Amino acid sequence: MKTAVIGIGYWGPNLIRNFLSSGSIEKVYVYDINPSRLDFIKRRFGEVIVAENEDSIFNNKEIDIVAIATPVDRHFNLAKRALEMNKHVWVEKPYTTSAEQAEILNNLAEEKGLNIFVDHTFIYTGAVRKMKELIDSGELGDILYFDSVRINLGLFQSDVNVIWDLAPHDLSIMFYLLNKKPTAISANGIANYYGHENVAHISVYFENNCFSHFHVNWTSPVKIRRMIVGGTKKMLVFDDMENSEKIKVYDSGIEMKEKEGIYNALVQYRIGDMYSPKLVQTEALTLGVEEFITSIKEKRKPLTNGDDGLNVVRILEASHKSIKQKGKLITL
Amino acid sequence: MKTAVIGIGYWGPNLIRNFLSSGSIEKVYVYDINPSRLDFIKRRFGEVIVAENEDSIFNNKEIDIVAIATPVDRHFNLAKRALEMNKHVWVEKPYTTSAEQAEILNNLAEEKGLNIFVDHTFIYTGAVRKMKELIDSGELGDILYFDSVRINLGLFQSDVNVIWDLAPHDLSIMFYLLNKKPTAISANGIANYYGHENVAHISVYFENNCFSHFHVNWTSPVKIRRMIVGGTKKMLVFDDMENSEKIKVYDSGIEMKEKEGIYNALVQYRIGDMYSPKLVQTEALTLGVEEFITSIKEKRKPLTNGDDGLNVVRILEASHKSIKQKGKLITL
Amino acid sequence: MKTAVIGIGYWGPNLIRNFLSSGSIEKVYVYDINPSRLDFIKRRFGEVIVAENEDSIFNNKEIDIVAIATPVDRHFNLAKRALEMNKHVWVEKPYTTSAEQAEILNNLAEEKGLNIFVDHTFIYTGAVRKMKELIDSGELGDILYFDSVRINLGLFQSDVNVIWDLAPHDLSIMFYLLNKKPTAISANGIANYYGHENVAHISVYFENNCFSHFHVNWTSPVKIRRMIVGGTKKMLVFDDMENSEKIKVYDSGIEMKEKEGIYNALVQYRIGDMYSPKLVQTEALTLGVEEFITSIKEKRKPLTNGDDGLNVVRILEASHKSIKQKGKLITL
Amino acid sequence: MKTAVIGIGYWGPNLIRNFLSSGSIEKVYVYDINPSRLDFIKRRFGEVIVAENEDSIFNNKEIDIVAIATPVDRHFNLAKRALEMNKHVWVEKPYTTSAEQAEILNNLAEEKGLNIFVDHTFIYTGAVRKMKELIDSGELGDILYFDSVRINLGLFQSDVNVIWDLAPHDLSIMFYLLNKKPTAISANGIANYYGHENVAHISVYFENNCFSHFHVNWTSPVKIRRMIVGGTKKMLVFDDMENSEKIKVYDSGIEMKEKEGIYNALVQYRIGDMYSPKLVQTEALTLGVEEFITSIKEKRKPLTNGDDGLNVVRILEASHKSIKQKGKLITL
Repeated sequence: MKTAVIGIGYWGPNLIRNFLSSGSIEKVYVYDINPSRLDFIKRRFGEVIVAENEDSIFNNKEIDIVAIATPVDRHFNLAKRALEMNKHVWVEKPYTTSAEQAEILNNLAEEKGLNIFVDHTFIYTGAVRKMKELIDSGELGDILYFDSVRINLGLFQSDVNVIWDLAPHDLSIMFYLLNKKPTAISANGIANYYGHENVAHISVYFENNCFSHFHVNWTSPVKIRRMIVGGTKKMLVFDDMENSEKIKVYDSGIEMKEKEGIYNALVQYRIGDMYSPKLVQTEALTLGVEEFITSIKEKRKPLTNGDDGLNVVRILEASHKSIKQKGKLITL
Repeated sequence: MKTAVIGIGYWGPNLIRNFLSSGSIEKVYVYDINPSRLDFIKRRFGEVIVAENEDSIFNNKEIDIVAIATPVDRHFNLAKRALEMNKHVWVEKPYTTSAEQAEILNNLAEEKGLNIFVDHTFIYTGAVRKMKELIDSGELGDILYFDSVRINLGLFQSDVNVIWDLAPHDLSIMFYLLNKKPTAISANGIANYYGHENVAHISVYFENNCFSHFHVNWTSPVKIRRMIVGGTKKMLVFDDMENSEKIKVYDSGIEMKEKEGIYNALVQYRIGDMYSPKLVQTEALTLGVEEFITSIKEKRKPLTNGDDGLNVVRILEASHKSIKQKGKLITL
Repeated sequence: MKTAVIGIGYWGPNLIRNFLSSGSIEKVYVYDINPSRLDFIKRRFGEVIVAENEDSIFNNKEIDIVAIATPVDRHFNLAKRALEMNKHVWVEKPYTTSAEQAEILNNLAEEKGLNIFVDHTFIYTGAVRKMKELIDSGELGDILYFDSVRINLGLFQSDVNVIWDLAPHDLSIMFYLLNKKPTAISANGIANYYGHENVAHISVYFENNCFSHFHVNWTSPVKIRRMIVGGTKKMLVFDDMENSEKIKVYDSGIEMKEKEGIYNALVQYRIGDMYSPKLVQTEALTLGVEEFITSIKEKRKPLTNGDDGLNVVRILEASHKSIKQKGKLITL
Repeated sequence: MKTAVIGIGYWGPNLIRNFLSSGSIEKVYVYDINPSRLDFIKRRFGEVIVAENEDSIFNNKEIDIVAIATPVDRHFNLAKRALEMNKHVWVEKPYTTSAEQAEILNNLAEEKGLNIFVDHTFIYTGAVRKMKELIDSGELGDILYFDSVRINLGLFQSDVNVIWDLAPHDLSIMFYLLNKKPTAISANGIANYYGHENVAHISVYFENNCFSHFHVNWTSPVKIRRMIVGGTKKMLVFDDMENSEKIKVYDSGIEMKEKEGIYNALVQYRIGDMYSPKLVQTEALTLGVEEFITSIKEKRKPLTNGDDGLNVVRILEASHKSIKQKGKLITL
C-alpha cells in the first residue's frame, strides 16, 4: 500500500516514521503548506516522496491512504476529498469541528466501502488496553464512576478551547472502557485570557447511574494525567506521569450492609491489597498503524473508526454549548 | 474562663486536650449522650468534669464557653440555647444545616454581644496561613482560579452527602484566601449507593472572571488533598498528603503578547523556579482555641466567626439544589 | 502484673500509655531524674504512681517488670539491678554499650529464669511482619541482598555516633528477616562536626553469598527510610515514608540462561507485576507489650529478647572498630 | 570537519545524530563489525557514509575526528591508532580498562597536540551544570559529603562488574562538582550471579574531611538515581527520576553552638525554605559535541578530557582491588 501524509506539525513526523517502518507500506508521500517543514522532513527521512501539492496526492491513483494531520478546521474538507477520490482516511483527533461533519464523512465512507481511522492514540497504549481487559473481565464489577484529570502548562490553541484540545484523549478512553451510552452533560470553566476557556470541567451522565468527570486545564503549574475508575468490586488508578506502575488496581471498595431494614443500611469501606500489572511497552502509534492496515486488508472497520470520532465530537459540541451557559444540562 | 464540650466523637478529645492545655481555661466540663464516651474521656483526661446532662451545662453560670461537637443536626438548637444562656459558642463545621439557621444564630450573638467561633480548623494550619500571606502580598498577582480536590475512601455520613461532609474545609479556605464574592454555583455528581451523593463536583463563579472548583469523593481508592491556585504572576500548589514541602510556589504562568493587533494576540507560557516555604508546625487547633479566647478577651469577632460559617453554609445549600438538578446554575 | 518505667524522654510516654492500656498491667510506677518530666507525666496520665527514687522501685516487691528508657549508658546498671532484684526487664534499643554487657545480662536472666525484652519496636510493625511472612513462605526465593537507608536531618546524640542511634532499627529487622549468620563487616563514614560520625555506611557479609548494607545519616536534607530485599525469585521494597503501599513485592528478577557452556552464561532480567499487600495497622508498641507479657506468662523468651539485643550490639561494636579504620574488615 | 564513528550499539545512533546536526561537521563516516548495524544506520540516516573497514577510516586523511563507541576493551587500541594517525579522539565512558592505558593515550595526545574528549555526558546536562554553578557560587558552603545512588534492574555487562558499568557517570560528576583530591577508597559488594559484582558500595575519602559514597546495583526492582550534596550552609538533592524539579536546594543544615566551653558544644539542626531552580533543557550530547568541536578550534582541552577520564578510571581500578578484599582501604 501507499500512503500520503498531509500536515507535518508536531505529530506528523511520528506518523511518517511509523508508516515507513510498517512492512505493508511501500511508499510515503508527504505534503505541508509550509515548504520549510517539507525540507525538514526530507532531511530526516530520506525515503519520503515530497508531493507538489494536495491535488497531486488526491489525483495519484496509486495512493491508498491519506493521513490528515493538519489543524482541525481542515480535517473535514481534506477527508471528504480523500474519500471522494477513493482513498482510506486516517484523521488526527479531534475528528471534525462538528458532529454534522463527522456524520457526512462516516456516511460517505460507508457508501464507498472505505475505512476511516480516527487517531485516538491512547486506545493503543499498553495502559489503556490493560484497563479495558480488567474491566471486560469483570474484575472491577460494574463501573460506578470514571474520573479524569489532564492538566499542565500547555500551549494555547489559537482556534479552540482547552476542551477541544485535551479532552478528546480522555473521552475516547472513556467510550472505549465504559461502553455505555451517555445521556447528558454539564460543563463549567473559565476563559482567563481570551475568548477560549483555559480551565474546564465536564460532567457526563450515563444510563444506569454511572457518572464521569473530566478536568482539563492549560494553565496548571503541575502536570497531572490521572484517571480513577470506581467499580462495585475493585477500583483502578491510571497515573500516566509515573515512569512505572502506571496502573494500580485496588481491592478496595464500599460495602452495603442491611441492618434491620432499609432505613438502617450501613455503608462500610474495605481496604485490601493493591497490584500493578505489567504493561506492554509497544509504541501506541505502531499498533494504531497496524490496526488500520489490517482493518483495510480484512475489509472491516478499525478499532477507532468514524463512529468513535463522532461520539467524541458530540460530547465536545455539547460541552461547548453547556460551558457558555455555565453548566446548563445538555441532553444527548 | 470555664468551658464545656458537648459531643465527644472523633474530634471531641482533640478539643478537650487543647482547652485543657490553654493557660486561659480553668475548668473543662464534658457531656455526651453516650455514657461510654464519658467514661473513656474521664480515663484519658483526669481533670475534666463530667456534667450530668446538657441542662446542667447551660444553667451553670460559671461556664463561659460552650463547644458543640455533636452531629450537625443538633448544632442549631444547642448553639441557640447556649447563646440564650449568655455563653460564647464554639461550633464544629459545618456550622448549621441551613443558611437561615446560621443567620438566626449570628443575629442572636450580635444582639447579646457574644462570640461565635466556627471551627474551620484548616484556616489555622501553617500551610493555609502561608498561602494567605503569599496571596495578600501580591506575589501571585490576581487570582484566576482555585482548584481543590479532597478524595479518599471515607466513612459515609448517614445524614448528609459528601459535599456537606468534606467541602466545608475547602470552601472555608477558599473564602479566606480569595476574599471575593461568589456569584453563582453549579454542582454535579452521583449517588452510587443510596440517596446521598458520594462523588461531587462544585463550580463556583466569582465577580471579575475568577472561578473555583471543588472535587469531593468518599469512594476513591487513593487519598488526594490538593489545591492549585492560579495567579496572573505565579501559581501555587498545596499538597496536604506530602510529609514536607506541602506548599510549592511556581514562578510559572501565561503571558499575552500583542502581535499586530488583537487578532494575533499570542499566548505563551513561562516556566521558572519553584520554591517551597518553610511552614509553622504549631497544631492548628491550638491556634484556633487561642484565637477564640483572645477574641473574647478583646471583645472582637474571631477570625472564623458566624459570618464565615454562614458563607460556607450558603454554598453548601446552593450546591445541594444544583446537584439535584444536574448542574443547574444557582445564583447566590 | 505491676510495671515501673525508668526514664521519661521522647519514648517513655508511649511506653507508659501502652502499659496503662494493657489489660494485664494493674499499676504503672514511673521515675525520672528530672522532676519536671515527672510532673508532666503525672498531668498527662492521672493513673501513674510517681516513685520517689530508683531504689524504691527495685526494692518494691510487688513490681514485676522494670522498663528502662534512659540514655544507653545507664541500661546495663539499671537492667542488672532489676534482674538481681528478680524483675523482668524491658530495655530500649540499643540494648547495651558493649557485647560484653549484653552477655552478662543475658546470662543473669538465664540463671534467674527472668525475661529480657529488647525494644526492637519495628519487629512488631505490620510492615516488618508482612515482610517476614513473605520471606518465610519462600515467595522471594533465597535472599541475595538486603539494603537499608535511614537518613534525615536528626538530632545529634551527644554520646554516640549515628550508627548507634539509627542502625539498631535496621539491624534488628535484618536479623529477624534473614535469619542468617553474619561473618564480617566493613564500615565507612565521616564525622563532619565533632568526634562522632554523622554519615555511615555498613556492609555486612553473610554465609552463602548473602550481603547487606546500611546507610545512616543525621545530616540529610531529605528523610528516606527504605529497604530493598533482593531474592532469587522476587524482590521487595519497604518504603516507610509512604502513607500507604509501604510494602511492594516485585515479580522481577534476574535469570541465568546457560548458552553453550558456562562461559556463555547469559544473564537476563525479567519484569512482571507488582503488588502491595494490605498491612495490619495495630500500633507496634502495643503488640510488643503484649508479646512481653505473654512470654512471661508462658515462661518462654519473648520474640525480641536479649540474644537479639546482643546480635545487634555485636554489629554496632564491630562497625565502630571498622569505621575508625576506614572500612577495615572485622570478622565476627 | 569530518568525523568517523566506530561502534554502533545503543549509544552510537545518538552520537551520529548529534554530529550530523552540528553545523561544523560536513561528513560522518560510520563503521561497525556487525553489517546489520550498518544497514540499520544507513536506513535511518541517509547522509552517513559507511566505511569499508576501520583501516579505511584511519587512513582517510580528510577525517579529523574518530569517535569510539565500542565495548570498553577496544577503546585503547582504537584511540591509540586514531591519535597515531593524527586524529582527535572522542571516547565513550569508561575511558579505558586501566589507568596505565589512559596515561599512554593522554601523553600521546599531548605530544601530538591532539584533543581527547571522554564522553562523561552527564557533565553537560542542565542539572549537573546548575549544581556546579550553585557549588561554585558558595551557596552551599564547604562540601561535607556527596552521596550517590544509581540502581535499577539492568542488563549485566558480560565483561565488567556493575562499578565499571554505572559508576563512571557518578564519579565524573563528583570530580566535576567537588574539585577535590580523593585520598583513599574502600569498596564492598557482592556477586550473586557470576564473577562480576552486581551490587557495590564505594566510599571515597578526600582531603579536608570530605567524604563521598556511591551505591550502584544492577539488580534493584526499583530505579533510583539520586545524589545528595551536604554543605556547611545548604544542602542539595538531585533526583534524576523526577520529570520536573530534578534539583532541590534546602536551606537546611546543622549548627554548632558553643555553650560554656568546648565540652558543651551543641549541635542543632535548622530547617528552612527549599527551592528548585529552572534547568536548561538542551540535550547534553549536543552540548558535548559543541564543546569538543569548539575546543579543537580554540586549540584547548575540552571540559571532559583525558585527565578526567584518567581520574575516573583510577577510582574504578582501586575499587576493583578493594571490593575483592572486602572493603580494604586503597590509598590513591
